[in-house]
Amino acid sequence: MSTPTRIGLIGTGRIGQVHARSIAAIDDAQLTWVCDPFEQSATSLSARYGGQVTTIPDHVFAAGDVDAVIIASPTPTHVSLIAAALDAGIPTLCEKPIDLDLAKVDSLRARAASSSVPFALGFNRRFDPHFAGVHRRVAAGEIGRLEQLTITSRDPAPQAKEYVAVSGGIFRDMTIHDLDMARFFVPDIVEVTARGANQFDSSAAELGDYDAVQLVLRGAGDELISITNSRHSAYGYDQRLEAFGERGLLQVGNVGPDVVRAFTGETVEAVGPYYNFFLERYVDAYRLELIEFLRAVRGEASTSPGFEDGRAALVLADAAEQSARTGASVSVDLRA
Amino acid sequence: MSTPTRIGLIGTGRIGQVHARSIAAIDDAQLTWVCDPFEQSATSLSARYGGQVTTIPDHVFAAGDVDAVIIASPTPTHVSLIAAALDAGIPTLCEKPIDLDLAKVDSLRARAASSSVPFALGFNRRFDPHFAGVHRRVAAGEIGRLEQLTITSRDPAPQAKEYVAVSGGIFRDMTIHDLDMARFFVPDIVEVTARGANQFDSSAAELGDYDAVQLVLRGAGDELISITNSRHSAYGYDQRLEAFGERGLLQVGNVGPDVVRAFTGETVEAVGPYYNFFLERYVDAYRLELIEFLRAVRGEASTSPGFEDGRAALVLADAAEQSARTGASVSVDLRA
Amino acid sequence: MSTPTRIGLIGTGRIGQVHARSIAAIDDAQLTWVCDPFEQSATSLSARYGGQVTTIPDHVFAAGDVDAVIIASPTPTHVSLIAAALDAGIPTLCEKPIDLDLAKVDSLRARAASSSVPFALGFNRRFDPHFAGVHRRVAAGEIGRLEQLTITSRDPAPQAKEYVAVSGGIFRDMTIHDLDMARFFVPDIVEVTARGANQFDSSAAELGDYDAVQLVLRGAGDELISITNSRHSAYGYDQRLEAFGERGLLQVGNVGPDVVRAFTGETVEAVGPYYNFFLERYVDAYRLELIEFLRAVRGEASTSPGFEDGRAALVLADAAEQSARTGASVSVDLRA
Amino acid sequence: MSTPTRIGLIGTGRIGQVHARSIAAIDDAQLTWVCDPFEQSATSLSARYGGQVTTIPDHVFAAGDVDAVIIASPTPTHVSLIAAALDAGIPTLCEKPIDLDLAKVDSLRARAASSSVPFALGFNRRFDPHFAGVHRRVAAGEIGRLEQLTITSRDPAPQAKEYVAVSGGIFRDMTIHDLDMARFFVPDIVEVTARGANQFDSSAAELGDYDAVQLVLRGAGDELISITNSRHSAYGYDQRLEAFGERGLLQVGNVGPDVVRAFTGETVEAVGPYYNFFLERYVDAYRLELIEFLRAVRGEASTSPGFEDGRAALVLADAAEQSARTGASVSVDLRA
Repeated sequence: MSTPTRIGLIGTGRIGQVHARSIAAIDDAQLTWVCDPFEQSATSLSARYGGQVTTIPDHVFAAGDVDAVIIASPTPTHVSLIAAALDAGIPTLCEKPIDLDLAKVDSLRARAASSSVPFALGFNRRFDPHFAGVHRRVAAGEIGRLEQLTITSRDPAPQAKEYVAVSGGIFRDMTIHDLDMARFFVPDIVEVTARGANQFDSSAAELGDYDAVQLVLRGAGDELISITNSRHSAYGYDQRLEAFGERGLLQVGNVGPDVVRAFTGETVEAVGPYYNFFLERYVDAYRLELIEFLRAVRGEASTSPGFEDGRAALVLADAAEQSARTGASVSVDLRA
Repeated sequence: MSTPTRIGLIGTGRIGQVHARSIAAIDDAQLTWVCDPFEQSATSLSARYGGQVTTIPDHVFAAGDVDAVIIASPTPTHVSLIAAALDAGIPTLCEKPIDLDLAKVDSLRARAASSSVPFALGFNRRFDPHFAGVHRRVAAGEIGRLEQLTITSRDPAPQAKEYVAVSGGIFRDMTIHDLDMARFFVPDIVEVTARGANQFDSSAAELGDYDAVQLVLRGAGDELISITNSRHSAYGYDQRLEAFGERGLLQVGNVGPDVVRAFTGETVEAVGPYYNFFLERYVDAYRLELIEFLRAVRGEASTSPGFEDGRAALVLADAAEQSARTGASVSVDLRA
Repeated sequence: MSTPTRIGLIGTGRIGQVHARSIAAIDDAQLTWVCDPFEQSATSLSARYGGQVTTIPDHVFAAGDVDAVIIASPTPTHVSLIAAALDAGIPTLCEKPIDLDLAKVDSLRARAASSSVPFALGFNRRFDPHFAGVHRRVAAGEIGRLEQLTITSRDPAPQAKEYVAVSGGIFRDMTIHDLDMARFFVPDIVEVTARGANQFDSSAAELGDYDAVQLVLRGAGDELISITNSRHSAYGYDQRLEAFGERGLLQVGNVGPDVVRAFTGETVEAVGPYYNFFLERYVDAYRLELIEFLRAVRGEASTSPGFEDGRAALVLADAAEQSARTGASVSVDLRA
Repeated sequence: MSTPTRIGLIGTGRIGQVHARSIAAIDDAQLTWVCDPFEQSATSLSARYGGQVTTIPDHVFAAGDVDAVIIASPTPTHVSLIAAALDAGIPTLCEKPIDLDLAKVDSLRARAASSSVPFALGFNRRFDPHFAGVHRRVAAGEIGRLEQLTITSRDPAPQAKEYVAVSGGIFRDMTIHDLDMARFFVPDIVEVTARGANQFDSSAAELGDYDAVQLVLRGAGDELISITNSRHSAYGYDQRLEAFGERGLLQVGNVGPDVVRAFTGETVEAVGPYYNFFLERYVDAYRLELIEFLRAVRGEASTSPGFEDGRAALVLADAAEQSARTGASVSVDLRA
């Protein structure tokens, strides 16, 4: 067995814990540092998964026994932590988004572009085996030229008003995953059209945010992409995708823990509910995302999305916001 | 358009009405006689679908404007009506069974064998497009050699006790359809094993009949066939089949009127109930059965099951009864 | 049996033949006149389904033995034929669209509004049992308030260039069905956003038409509706709908002739292809549409879509065209 | 975190490795000993999952740092190892079967019955979440009284002839899992009927074994149970179950790694192949089986199948063999 990659984890909230579990499940990875300003939380995670505890991120970057860093702290800390990681020359996997403000993202852009240190952004859905399977089959030509992509993404229930208030709005907080999924299949998006609605969540309305949106993206090859979002879903987390091409369609349906089907006098073929939310639905994706990032850390070829992918998704989210507000399609140039 | 085939219908009960509707839906068929001892019933059916009315079957055979006869009267009348049809030289489609008593069936056997007049027995399920599709694909070699056949057949609810009392028992009344379906795929059955149970229907138990049975048939090529029957099914008429071969499996699931799937907080992918019973489930099969019979009437090649198929199913039902009573497998020789 | 409704059929092309077959299948309807400028076609249809033959529509309106007329002639004839039917006071079922030019439609609008003679427009999909079932269940409150509607509609293959040239473009020719389906669920549409693409059909491109479009409609209650269209589909006619509400989702999947599923070493659960096109897919819908229209003819309550529904769909198609050309959402007021 | 349960693993073949992986995935379990007469295999497994290495099982029983033993060695060693475990008073999870010879099993029966040391037999399928889910729902009364149980179980490909030669035959080697599954739902089986066939595997025929069998079991409450087995399956490991009761049906279909469905001009709704064999299909079941066993080790209530379950399955397999050879149903009394 090779020497395990030593990982420092910054942020021990919900996602930080997911990453800690993934590290524990990967043979050649080892958690060596755990950092959180809330020391109790870091200590608790460390007790379970190992690693030295600190409340100061710089301790992690300077520790010397850290081959890679995972940034899972709140969004406002990302830019300075990424900068610190670039300075320290430590490979980094950072949770999305880089920042909610494109200007701040762009302040890092040149440094990120000129750096040879691996940097991966946590668009975990690219690593979901089902979405990745469709991507692989489309790339292999199974459905010929890709013409239409249909993405459905509904959260089980609205976030708390406090969360929504600092989330950057539905496009930057929720749709951004679907915008990246669109770019996974059609990297060069050239036009964004978006419409938003207020259907059920008075908190969102009070904050000037939408609770349901519908987008149409256009790719450079005249591909049309539909994204349907809602902040609630009575039947659980709704995560589906259809890739339509000249020779056929590949479809990812929802996934649940249960394959038992029930047949009664009222309904037939009924299965139990789907996974409730992303921690259950994407548990494999988080682990596979980490494995792919570790390839880059070891100097191997890696397909992890990077800084420019994080920036592109934000550009598209900003464009969607603008389109929804003005009623006009917005042209974008992600290559600029 | 060619001259329509003129049809005399004997028996205007539930199945007789199905046939009358099929005749009306077929361009080159015409109902010319309607016969029922209950004249009111014949008159009523005639008013809707045409044809002269009589209470005497011989009038139909002697009418002169009848190219074919459909016998849909009660089982005890079948043997004498078939004999009359053979005497009159009129092509006949007779509802199953020929008779519940093998001796009576055999009394007609030689005459039926030596007759060149078309005779079809109403094993309508052979004409269900789904079962027929599997049969065609198996014959075309899609799954290679057929090795196992699994037939599931459950009625929605037990028949009335009075009906069960004269039905000949579950094997001759209900299983007989599945025995013919088995022979549709594996004509030469050589061994019958059956077990019966009394699970829910006290009427059946009082009559010494079973309400649920499980059979194992063996074909001459060592094929194994499973038949599962129950006299009730909470979720409607349960009619399924699986053909398993060396290269794969072909499966016929249940069919319903509705493709709408519902997703709620309790279950997902739930569809409405299946068809409740055979009149709905096999409406196409009855029509296609008649069309195939009319081919024979016109002197064309036809794949309708005939007298020997009716006899074979009864032989197998008798063997099943004997096996269920004795606990021993029963060898049969359908070619004898 | 009541006196059958006597029907005059104008137009004996593909759709005219569908209606003739429906009339033949409906007990209390009778085809009394068949009209087509191509007399051979009228004669041929009459030979099969009955009715006197003429090449002059006025003969039908003046015949005296016509209780209702079906207009299935080419689109440019619709306005004058509807006018003639209104003048004659004969109930009419007219194939969509009323016309491709809103000004011509509006020239009839006042007369249609003031007429008490039943007029139905042939938006047959409203009568598809599956779509109608979802509509009924949504109306019954099964999923609570309707929030999002997702309509997928793809033709199997592009029409001939000559057809496309006079079709009015994809929005008026193809999307119009989906726009009416949107209004079936959300009658008051207030905003249309559309994007078009040229992906595979050079004929369409040459004519300045799109071969794939994606629309977003907004209802007066802030409902969001997505429509996805393509002029081709390798797997056959793709006709699906999802109604999403606060308490769940109702989904209509594609329908095919076959329920047999195949399991091999390569794939499992594979079923045969779907219905190839609308004549097969919507055969029930055409018949049920006619039955509903006949209710109105007999003076009974009827839910058939009417003149205003035909006009509204065209208004929305025009708005879609404008939106696709300008890149801006278009507000509409269907109540004006 | 509590002190981990220290486990000695005897046998490091395919199943031994599965258990080692499960131990590694369970927080409060630790592999302390690894035993295999083939030392290289034990050393290799130990290098990956920890534990001291030995070639002598007695070293494990005597080590002092072993709270539980897993017996995953070849079947002929089970009886003596179980005896040693009982002598040492060490809780044991033993792979099925106890032995292929009922006399040997019975030689241990009294000791096993009088021992208070936990003993679990590795009928892992009881712990499959889907089968266990159906069991739980049946027990909760969801389908009322259980009347019929249908078990389908097909291996992907025949075993090597050398394996089959010492396997005890298809009933004791393969069907035994289904016999235990039958008992999971209907513990008191009173009658066994079985038919065997030779369809494709000449090796089996040469050894006097069957390659396909069909069984009918009867429960003490007149339940009927169908078991369908084949030694090959072109579409992968086929593991399905249906529980039919007075109020409905619960169905476990096959499970695969992939939910992507493909739609082409040839077939629609096709998914990728199922899991190929039991190591993939039952990976969760193995882990959950171990977790349940560890409950017993810690003195908590546990539902693990035990010695009597292992004996009962063998009694049923012997009865099946006898029935298949004689053509007569065989009565059994599992309570004797």
